[in-house]
Amino acid sequence: MLVKVAGQTGFCFGVKRAINIAEKTLKEASQGKGIYSFGPIIHNPQVVDALSKKGLRVIKDIKNLGKGTVIVCSHGAPKSVIEKIKKMGSRVIDATCPFVKYAQDIVSDLKKQEYKIIIIGDKQHPEVKALLSIAENRGTAQNVTRNRAKKIGIVSQTTQNKGDYLAAICQILKQDFREARIFNTICSDTSRRQALTRRLLSQCDVMIVVGGKNSANTRRLWQICKESGVGSYHIETDAELKREYFRGKRCAGVVSGASTPDSMVKKVVKKIEELS
Amino acid sequence: MLVKVAGQTGFCFGVKRAINIAEKTLKEASQGKGIYSFGPIIHNPQVVDALSKKGLRVIKDIKNLGKGTVIVCSHGAPKSVIEKIKKMGSRVIDATCPFVKYAQDIVSDLKKQEYKIIIIGDKQHPEVKALLSIAENRGTAQNVTRNRAKKIGIVSQTTQNKGDYLAAICQILKQDFREARIFNTICSDTSRRQALTRRLLSQCDVMIVVGGKNSANTRRLWQICKESGVGSYHIETDAELKREYFRGKRCAGVVSGASTPDSMVKKVVKKIEELS
Repeated sequence: MLVKVAGQTGFCFGVKRAINIAEKTLKEASQGKGIYSFGPIIHNPQVVDALSKKGLRVIKDIKNLGKGTVIVCSHGAPKSVIEKIKKMGSRVIDATCPFVKYAQDIVSDLKKQEYKIIIIGDKQHPEVKALLSIAENRGTAQNVTRNRAKKIGIVSQTTQNKGDYLAAICQILKQDFREARIFNTICSDTSRRQALTRRLLSQCDVMIVVGGKNSANTRRLWQICKESGVGSYHIETDAELKREYFRGKRCAGVVSGASTPDSMVKKVVKKIEELS
Repeated sequence: MLVKVAGQTGFCFGVKRAINIAEKTLKEASQGKGIYSFGPIIHNPQVVDALSKKGLRVIKDIKNLGKGTVIVCSHGAPKSVIEKIKKMGSRVIDATCPFVKYAQDIVSDLKKQEYKIIIIGDKQHPEVKALLSIAENRGTAQNVTRNRAKKIGIVSQTTQNKGDYLAAICQILKQDFREARIFNTICSDTSRRQALTRRLLSQCDVMIVVGGKNSANTRRLWQICKESGVGSYHIETDAELKREYFRGKRCAGVVSGASTPDSMVKKVVKKIEELS
């Protein structure tokens, strides 16, 4: 069977950078003791497991934090969390992706200029939680609120689907506004992988999406595949592949998220060739 | 026959202001000599005729301008024209509608901040011509142009239909952009008359749109009527009404543009009652 791999695989710039920061921090510390990350450093359980074995302790709640060094994960963290960690006396190392940081800076500027801020993304995702923490409105005066409502600032989660973002914007603009400031904060790596996924969908009759089940950008690739009607499977490792996926199929497409190691994509291709 | 008149008729704020400025200027000048307007002061031929009889000379080309006082019409004028008039030694009195002025100020700010400016409106309309003259890009360096293309600023002619404006924006946002700054420069009088026209359309089986054939906001009311499928007629004066318009009809709706005098709306209602 023919196996076509998307023209872009492997870690994106932000993921590569976050892993390098984690590895460097672990190496510098004696035996990696007291090195924490607030949330998984990237959304790929296998990569995070490997870092944990080297001594990185992933915490979800800062209550579980001992004194030491805390790495802020690639998706960023709410301002309040970072402040608390600093107050507890720990050293903070920021591995937030520069593209996520760019979106954070925009939200911060919009807030200073009293825009009503709208973030298009998944409320539960750490990136969006961090953006919301910056957007948080502490003003209470009614006239301020009214004024703000006429000035709207819109940003997107960096891993959003551009079509969905545009649809949301067009919906928002139907409301009464005086000025709307819209930022395209979708990172170019995300856009490229989505475009390449669409291209493969037109050539293949089965699609394998490789990446963390908790990875927003991987899940959006899977969503694009599902919506196309082509049989699609989201897997984290080659071990999840089943022979029946490929029965009667002629061409399999393989796409992967920004936090999926290239080595895993290679394993998946090899396994497909064995099974089909 | 039942005749329903839209809840908003008569001159809008900007038109009333421009007429007041013209009348005051004519009164102050001895016999109104040497008082010009660059283009019709408002887009209603009957009102402009009345002002002409009081001594206002409407010119289309500054070549035809004698020395004196020149009133800039309610729709504004290109910067280059105003500069030329001043150089010729004439006094300039600005009757540009403050809402049009607001759109001009936005375009001027966007230009300073190096946005690529997009104006949604009728290219041939004096308001849009004036906005374009402010937006005009004199930079030629390629890298500047590229940078600008990623920052888009969008404004609308003040008399635009909001639905058409939103459709144009959603189309523009499909292109590659980094930031889009969108201003709702449609004036509230325009929005209100359009909404009231839609309401009357649901109640009437014939519609009379009263206002200058050269009036953009009146023409847009007529467009809304035509698109609805209800028989609609755009007239400037009651003399244009014909008995056949109302044959077999039960309810006539009357709407009017922002530059249509209330007295003309009353004449139209009277004539409909006579004819039907």
